[in-house]
Formats: sequence, structure tokens, C-alpha cells
Amino acid sequence: MADAETELETGTTVGRVRDGTFVQSLDRGLAVIRAFDAQHPVLNLSEVARATGLTRAAARRFLLTLVHLGYVRVEGREFSLRPRVLELGYSYLSGLTLPEVSQPHLEALVSRVDESSSVSVLDGDDVVYVARVHTKRIMTVMITVGTRFPAYATSMGHVLLAGLPDAELADYLARAELAPLTSRTVTDPGALRARLGEVRAQGYAVVDEELEEGLRSAAAPVRNREGAVVAAVNLSVSANRTSLRRLEDEFVPPLLETAAQISRDLGCPASA
Amino acid sequence: MADAETELETGTTVGRVRDGTFVQSLDRGLAVIRAFDAQHPVLNLSEVARATGLTRAAARRFLLTLVHLGYVRVEGREFSLRPRVLELGYSYLSGLTLPEVSQPHLEALVSRVDESSSVSVLDGDDVVYVARVHTKRIMTVMITVGTRFPAYATSMGHVLLAGLPDAELADYLARAELAPLTSRTVTDPGALRARLGEVRAQGYAVVDEELEEGLRSAAAPVRNREGAVVAAVNLSVSANRTSLRRLEDEFVPPLLETAAQISRDLGCPASA
Repeated sequence: MADAETELETGTTVGRVRDGTFVQSLDRGLAVIRAFDAQHPVLNLSEVARATGLTRAAARRFLLTLVHLGYVRVEGREFSLRPRVLELGYSYLSGLTLPEVSQPHLEALVSRVDESSSVSVLDGDDVVYVARVHTKRIMTVMITVGTRFPAYATSMGHVLLAGLPDAELADYLARAELAPLTSRTVTDPGALRARLGEVRAQGYAVVDEELEEGLRSAAAPVRNREGAVVAAVNLSVSANRTSLRRLEDEFVPPLLETAAQISRDLGCPASA
Repeated sequence: MADAETELETGTTVGRVRDGTFVQSLDRGLAVIRAFDAQHPVLNLSEVARATGLTRAAARRFLLTLVHLGYVRVEGREFSLRPRVLELGYSYLSGLTLPEVSQPHLEALVSRVDESSSVSVLDGDDVVYVARVHTKRIMTVMITVGTRFPAYATSMGHVLLAGLPDAELADYLARAELAPLTSRTVTDPGALRARLGEVRAQGYAVVDEELEEGLRSAAAPVRNREGAVVAAVNLSVSANRTSLRRLEDEFVPPLLETAAQISRDLGCPASA
């Protein structure tokens, strides 16, 4: 406890949480919430136990607690989430200026090029969408926010990795497992390092069917007032419909403008 | 424990959670997440303790656990939420068909009348936004979803309350505290009951500056395949710009059409 305290107060690594400090019940309760998703919006007790690895007795205690707190509804033997869980995710989004600042710029970009555009941030080794405007599908925004993809296979990930300080990038390249997601995914750390060097030099990234067959995207960095890369904005296109050449020639220039406008709104000096 | 088990398995009331069944740590951990919001995106240990009513030692344990689980970032003495918390709220949204089904209909309505439109559900005594299309402000969707307002002061709330079975409505009217939010808020349970009777009869609700000065709105019920009211869709307008008469004459008819279309997509027979 004293150790943990010291760690926190001095802001050093807190990755290793000591026994007695770690609140296992919180971990398990959050796992129960995450057991529900689009494919499993309604679960019974056994299914929650199976999805979380908890015993039925433990799963029941957590479900009852979540029912009591208004996060879970029970009807007969079936459990489902209640809208109150939105307060948890929105605690994050509402504290973020990035989605709001990005909004008008993403809209303008999407209406100009008629392709979908997103903003993401780096969280560990993943990019996480915090904003998205899909061409002609306004509400898709909501559904897509929170989506995670491995950074090494996405254009936004390349931009965010290229924006890391050298030491952090070296750590990432040493630890990341670069699994092939398509036949084009870059899986060699040395090759990825070279790609990220190009991204730094040219100021944007293009990924060609490395995350998913048929999907191309380009991304550009969003910088804060200190000039640090804090987010990436992308345009994603269908490989069938849009050639790599058209993506680079026609879409990258407005994308770079959009990234610069968002950066400016975040206080980044125009020259950065 | 045996009692709790029986309760759950038979699906009877689980509001009263017995000591030993209720997982207090989960309650407290979720309170720590909720302590962060738009006004307080970054908190130190003392601020989290104050906002949650926890001791500093307890707040520290929960924060450390959340840091370990990837939900909270610590920099020096400052804590903030990480994007992983989005997984919690989006577990709910992604399991809901309503936002997706509503999407094209809300978009069509907003482009037709050029006013903002939302879909909400009843959660306890509040309406909670699960979808919103704001005229010209696509991304507002995200920020607004999860917003709660007391049902008695909103047009969507009136529609949802009017859709309750009589016994549930009587319970609501007996327990609800109808605090005046503007000079026009209906604060008398009998008067509210009469208003809801009108809503049932005419099939839509209009609220005129009862939630907030300067804000008018109209709402219509969305029904499921059994014909039960499961959501409400609204149009909200500025009282300065749009008269009550224009709201009723010009906006209510397309609103009713939109509600009927969403209901039909949810499987509601056209006659309901």
C-alpha cells in the first residue's frame, strides 16, 4: 500500500499493481458489462459466467449488483444492459475536446470527397476511433466510436506511431506482435520502422489492404499546441472503387488541409 | 445468497440486494469512472476522493486498479480516462437495434424540416438519448447520446410516460418529484396525468418551454412488433424562430410519419 502510494504520487510506472491494492471485484464487474455486445445483447446467467470465466455464483453477485445500480435490466432469466452504461463511456468523450473540434472539419472533408473520415488516438498498441463521419450515414458515428484496430496495420496507426518519441517507438517495435491480417500486412519490425520513417518524412501515411482486403486508407497527423502528434485523421476508400494513385493525388491534399485545420483549432502553430 | 439466487431465477424484484450479495467495490469503481466529465476531464487523487466520497486510500486503490486495467491514465499526479472506457458504453449501443434502424429516418426528417431530431428511451424516471441528428452538426450525435432529462418536462418523456401501462404510470405519478424547471413546467401530478391523457388520445406530445426557456419540442411514439411504446422520436425548435402553431401544423405531420416508419422497421404492424 505504501509502495503503491509512493508510485502514484511520484508518477512512476504503475503497471505492476500489488496484491491487496488491485480491486479484483472491479475488474470482474467491468468484464460482466463487456460480456454484452452487438452479437450478445441479451445473456442469461450461464452465458455471462461462460463469457467472463466467473463461477455462476460470482456472475450472479455481479449481475445483481449491476441491476441494483441501474446498469443492467433483468427480465425473467435474461439480462441486458440499460442506457445508464452510456454515462461511463461518455465520461470520456465529453471530457475530450477533440471530437467537437474535429466535427465541422470532418463534415466538410466528407462532403468534399464523398468518402468516410475518422479521427483516432493511440491507446496502448491500438488506434481507437473517437470520431467518425461516414458518407451518407450520420448515425454510424456513434456505433463506430470506440472501435479498436492494431496500430501497425492502419494508416492512422502509422501516423500515430511515427509521431511517437524515438524511445517509445523503439519500445513498441520491440514488443509488438505484427500478425499478418492480410497478405499485405507489414509483419517485419525493420520494414515497419522504414515505413514509419517515410511517414515522418512525407507527413502522411497510406495503407493498402494491410488491415482488410479491399480497404485502402490515408491518414495525416493532428498536432496540439506543443506540436506533438495527439491524433490522426483518415479517409478510407474501397480498393475496387478508388485506385492508390487517386487516393494519393486527389484525397491526400484535402486530408492534409483538414488535419492542419483541426491542429490549428487545437492551438498548434501553423508551421508545425 | 440462496435468496438472491431464487429471486433471480424466478425473475422477481431484485431491487433489494442483500448484504453479502452486493459488490460494493464495483459500485465504488464505477463512481470513480463517473467522477470524470466534461468539466473535470483531469482529476488528482484528492479530487477523486472528494467527488466520490471515498477516502484517499480507497480512491487510490480504485484508481490504481483502473490504471492497471487500461481505463485510466496517470501523468504525474493527474488522472484522466483512457479511450478503453468507450467499450463500456458502446456495449450498450452496439447491442441496440434502435439507433441503427432510426438512422436513415432521422436523417431524412432533419433534411426535410431543417431542425434537430432525437430518439430516446425511458430509463427509470428519465429519458435518455440514444440517437440524435442535429441540423448541420453531424458529430453532435456522439456528444449528446447518453444525455438524460426528467421525463415530465420533455415531449419525448410525455410520449414514453403516456405509453406506460396504467399501473406503472400511477406508480410514476405517485413517486415523481415534479420540480419546476421553468415557469411553464407542469408540477401538479393531476395536471400531468391530464396532459398524458391528451397525448394518448392525439398520438403525439408538444412541450412548450417546460424543460428550458426558449425550447419547444414535439415527440411521437415508436412502437415494437407488439405495438408497445419502446422509444420516442422528437423535433426540437427554438421558440424564437418557430411558433407553436408552425410546430404543430408543419412539423408534427412529418414527425408522425418518421415515427411510423421507424416503428414499421421494428416490426410494428402498420395499424398500431
